[in-house]
Amino acid sequence: MNELSLSKAYRFLEPGPVVLMTTAYKGSTNIMTMSYYMIIQDGSEDGSVPLIGCSIGPWDHSFTALCATGECVIAVPTVDLASKVVEIGNCSGDDVDKFDAFGLTPVSAEKVKSPLVAECLANLECRVSDNSLVDKYNLFILEVVKAWTDPERKERRMIHHNGDGTFVVDGRTINLKKKMVKWPTYL
Amino acid sequence: MNELSLSKAYRFLEPGPVVLMTTAYKGSTNIMTMSYYMIIQDGSEDGSVPLIGCSIGPWDHSFTALCATGECVIAVPTVDLASKVVEIGNCSGDDVDKFDAFGLTPVSAEKVKSPLVAECLANLECRVSDNSLVDKYNLFILEVVKAWTDPERKERRMIHHNGDGTFVVDGRTINLKKKMVKWPTYL
Repeated sequence: MNELSLSKAYRFLEPGPVVLMTTAYKGSTNIMTMSYYMIIQDGSEDGSVPLIGCSIGPWDHSFTALCATGECVIAVPTVDLASKVVEIGNCSGDDVDKFDAFGLTPVSAEKVKSPLVAECLANLECRVSDNSLVDKYNLFILEVVKAWTDPERKERRMIHHNGDGTFVVDGRTINLKKKMVKWPTYL
Repeated sequence: MNELSLSKAYRFLEPGPVVLMTTAYKGSTNIMTMSYYMIIQDGSEDGSVPLIGCSIGPWDHSFTALCATGECVIAVPTVDLASKVVEIGNCSGDDVDKFDAFGLTPVSAEKVKSPLVAECLANLECRVSDNSLVDKYNLFILEVVKAWTDPERKERRMIHHNGDGTFVVDGRTINLKKKMVKWPTYL
C-alpha cells in the first residue's frame, strides 16, 4: 500500500461508492458496509483537514466501538468484492468475525487501532472529530488522519448502491478538466 | 414528470451522483453543481422523513438564497448533461442566468418556489430542516418534501465526480437483492 496525500483522499469518496468501515474494540475487529456519508471538507486547501460526515445507527455493532474508541478506517472496495460487501452489511459483528468469515486481510494502520483492509483500493484512517450530532442524527464527523491507496490494483471499478439491493458498477470515465475553474490544479 | 414516493427518493442519491441544486430568490433562479451531500435519514421507515445533509459554501451564490428562503430543489442529471453540469459548476449565478445559458427548462415545483429541472432524471423538493451546522461546517440539513421522477427518460446513467475534473459514468447494474436482509421489501 502506498501513502496517499490527505489533500487527495476525498477523491475516493466524492464519487459516492459504497464503502466499508472497520473498527477495533475490546480485542476484536469489525467491519460494516456504509453508503450514507459525505465529504464535509475536502482538505484540498492548504491548512484545511479532510472531514467526512457519516451516519451510523446505534443498532450497528460498530456504533459502540466508534463511540468508545473514536477511531475507524474507511476502506473503499471494488466490484470484485461486491458479494462480500453485501454479506458484511447483512450480518452482525456480534455473531461473526467478519475479516475471517469473508477472507479479508486486516493490516495494521499507522495512526489508529482499527485495521486497514488489504483487499481494498483505498483506506482512510479516521478519528471522530465531532460527535455532537450523534444523538440527534446518528451523524459522526470524522477527520481523515492518514490515507493509503493500492496503485497496483488492476480492478479499480467501485460500486454504488441504488438503495434496493442492486448496485451500479463504475463504467467509463469522461474528462472534463478543461471546463473546470480548478483545471490547472488538476494536472 | 411522475410523483415519486418520499420513501424511495433516497434511491437517486444513495449511489452518490453529482447533482444540481436550484434556488429562487429576489425574482431570479439559480443552479449549482454539488457532490458533497449525504443521506442522513432515508425516510424508508413509516413515520420517518427523508433528510439530506449538504455542504454549500458561503462563496456560492446559492448559499444566500438557501439561507434566506430555506428552500431548494435537488435535481439529478444524467450523462447527456455532463458538460452542462460542469459549466454550471464553473460560473456564478451573479453573472449568468443558468437555466437560460445552458438551455435547461425550469418547471414549477409543488411545495417550494425553487424550480424543478425538466431535463433531469429526478427532482427532490427540499426545505431546510436544520441550519445549526451552517456556521461551523457550511452544512445544511434538508427535508425532502416532494419528489418527482421521469420514468420515460431513456438515458438514465448518472455521473460521479472523481474530484479532479473527471467523471465516472454509470456502468452495468448487478443484482444482489437476495443477499440483503431487507430483500422482501425490495420486491
